[in-house]
Amino acid sequence: MSRPWRRPSSLMPSRDGFPTKVLLGALAGALAGAAAVAIWGSGSHAANGSRQSPSRERNTRNSRRATMHAQQMISTHPHVKGNTNDALIRCIEECYSCAQACTSCADACLGEDMVNQLTQCIRLNLDCADVCAATGSIATRRTGSNEEVIRRMLEACAVACRLCGEECERHAGMHEHCRICAESCRRCERACREALSSMAH
Amino acid sequence: MSRPWRRPSSLMPSRDGFPTKVLLGALAGALAGAAAVAIWGSGSHAANGSRQSPSRERNTRNSRRATMHAQQMISTHPHVKGNTNDALIRCIEECYSCAQACTSCADACLGEDMVNQLTQCIRLNLDCADVCAATGSIATRRTGSNEEVIRRMLEACAVACRLCGEECERHAGMHEHCRICAESCRRCERACREALSSMAH
Amino acid sequence: MSRPWRRPSSLMPSRDGFPTKVLLGALAGALAGAAAVAIWGSGSHAANGSRQSPSRERNTRNSRRATMHAQQMISTHPHVKGNTNDALIRCIEECYSCAQACTSCADACLGEDMVNQLTQCIRLNLDCADVCAATGSIATRRTGSNEEVIRRMLEACAVACRLCGEECERHAGMHEHCRICAESCRRCERACREALSSMAH
Amino acid sequence: MSRPWRRPSSLMPSRDGFPTKVLLGALAGALAGAAAVAIWGSGSHAANGSRQSPSRERNTRNSRRATMHAQQMISTHPHVKGNTNDALIRCIEECYSCAQACTSCADACLGEDMVNQLTQCIRLNLDCADVCAATGSIATRRTGSNEEVIRRMLEACAVACRLCGEECERHAGMHEHCRICAESCRRCERACREALSSMAH
Repeated sequence: MSRPWRRPSSLMPSRDGFPTKVLLGALAGALAGAAAVAIWGSGSHAANGSRQSPSRERNTRNSRRATMHAQQMISTHPHVKGNTNDALIRCIEECYSCAQACTSCADACLGEDMVNQLTQCIRLNLDCADVCAATGSIATRRTGSNEEVIRRMLEACAVACRLCGEECERHAGMHEHCRICAESCRRCERACREALSSMAH
Repeated sequence: MSRPWRRPSSLMPSRDGFPTKVLLGALAGALAGAAAVAIWGSGSHAANGSRQSPSRERNTRNSRRATMHAQQMISTHPHVKGNTNDALIRCIEECYSCAQACTSCADACLGEDMVNQLTQCIRLNLDCADVCAATGSIATRRTGSNEEVIRRMLEACAVACRLCGEECERHAGMHEHCRICAESCRRCERACREALSSMAH
Repeated sequence: MSRPWRRPSSLMPSRDGFPTKVLLGALAGALAGAAAVAIWGSGSHAANGSRQSPSRERNTRNSRRATMHAQQMISTHPHVKGNTNDALIRCIEECYSCAQACTSCADACLGEDMVNQLTQCIRLNLDCADVCAATGSIATRRTGSNEEVIRRMLEACAVACRLCGEECERHAGMHEHCRICAESCRRCERACREALSSMAH
Repeated sequence: MSRPWRRPSSLMPSRDGFPTKVLLGALAGALAGAAAVAIWGSGSHAANGSRQSPSRERNTRNSRRATMHAQQMISTHPHVKGNTNDALIRCIEECYSCAQACTSCADACLGEDMVNQLTQCIRLNLDCADVCAATGSIATRRTGSNEEVIRRMLEACAVACRLCGEECERHAGMHEHCRICAESCRRCERACREALSSMAH
């Protein structure tokens, strides 16, 4: 007698008892899949998720990356007690990261042969680094309150990052450090605006 | 006819053709294993690898963590061209991270009821934040050279972090933010000393 | 023979004429007056013009005061060539001075027995120091242009100084360092607003 | 009858009564002398005592110079009570002043046509500004104690100022801002070393 459909006997308890084939296959697959994700997740990607060239891969695997701990620190503040404003914390971290990126980009531009075409870029980077550093520091404080100052600094920082990012983008095609810095400024600008929105509630 | 052992026919090309049962099981297992590793790796662990309480888990998953990009930025410097001093770069990142942690800890101590017992801790945190911020900034620069100043700042930073870390540890049992900050200072102290060693070659 | 007046003939041979007495008196008076002003102007007054207590007089005379040289530095900028915006320069100097005053006041408040009543004051002082330092630095730069960022920082700084000054004034009657810091914040706020006005033209 | 000596009758109460002419002359002279000293003392000299060119005279008279108030602030610290370390206070003020001068010089060099010959100078100025700012801030704090860190920062600052001053001097003949900055660095270096000596007692 013909059956119109085939019952996948391997998914059913076999007449022999134990669905060994399936289990063995699942185990092997699980190990392979887990290994693949683990290697993929840690080794070959830059912190921002883009693929790296082989030399940068090597550097990333060798250098244990430092991370910001603003979330941890602030959630243990006696007045916060775990009830954190995540948008503001993200902004704090982006500010510190962007301050470093802009300091680095200003320095890299200074080292280029065509430095005299990059003076406006250097100037905006130096200003941006100053604003980001101050904003990250001020936004960190939870004792007492100083909301109006935080808002104004977030606004100033968003503007500084926008202008610096725009200038860096003009040179991004020719200078990789400008391309990377522009991304950092865009992330920080966005984070500042999200933090501002979160403070309106 | 009875067989003393069962040849796992599913692992061999069956007379039926395609070892479907095994493949299906492997696929299901791979997906399950990959998902397990992905969730475990990103969601439930704090940046420093320790398990978090449920509320902090929720916060970490929701907040996209910012990372430092010193490696990327500096490797694209025209004078560096990918040949980075990884120990120095790690140190730069730890410095920026520690500057934020110490600013946060000083502020958290200020918010404690027993603030008058934490004034030395606050003072060391404020000093440490200043040293770390300056050191991170100065160590970032690759144009020209200023090795003697970098060395002295790394030494000053290592000392500042050691003293601040020791003071924070005295209060770590009572204040979680002091415990976290002490860890940050220890990491930064170590990174400064490794960076110093790397500059001796 | 009597004479109604006696001419000190040893100073002049003339019979008539020269109003020697007046000149001698004028000379003596001029020397005395000049000496009086010189001593009064340098020794017994604090930099801000108020009379000091004897111990502070001693300290002021002994310590050669450092002054800011922003005017000199900026007037020699290749793009400025002596044509300085004096209001902006005054603001730069006030910003650096205020950054130091607020750092000092935060620290002094931290050292008071009643520190737990001064936490809001400390927080505002720390924020103000950060804003002032960044504003002084950014306003200093004349290469290229970044007017929108300078304006926003001047506004943020004016607000930070106003709020910090108001808080310090609440404690001025009890803490001299708060009284002095409040004056510094008021001067800086005013300088920021004058600099903003000067940029509108 | 002849008299061997002449009694200057103008200095004696005349037979007419009041030595009016002398007094009037003395008063006029005192006023003139005082006015002369006051104008000379404030208007035509740069803050460092050297004579200025006419245009700079005009600028200095118009701009009310800001001064540092570190002496005042620190002498009112609850733990200091007027017993100030003047060498350390002078150093604090020089640090803030030098941080501004180096920021300004880096920016001025960036604005020169021959910027590509000034990149090392810019780099040293940026580093020096960072060290000076941190040192001024850290040395300001009197609550609790952190002597080892202060010492190391004073040493780092002295070295940074020495190296920056030497580099600026190489360009001083061609760039006035480098000449002025070199002087600032020398003053700050000296102040740091005097502060270090004062801490050894």
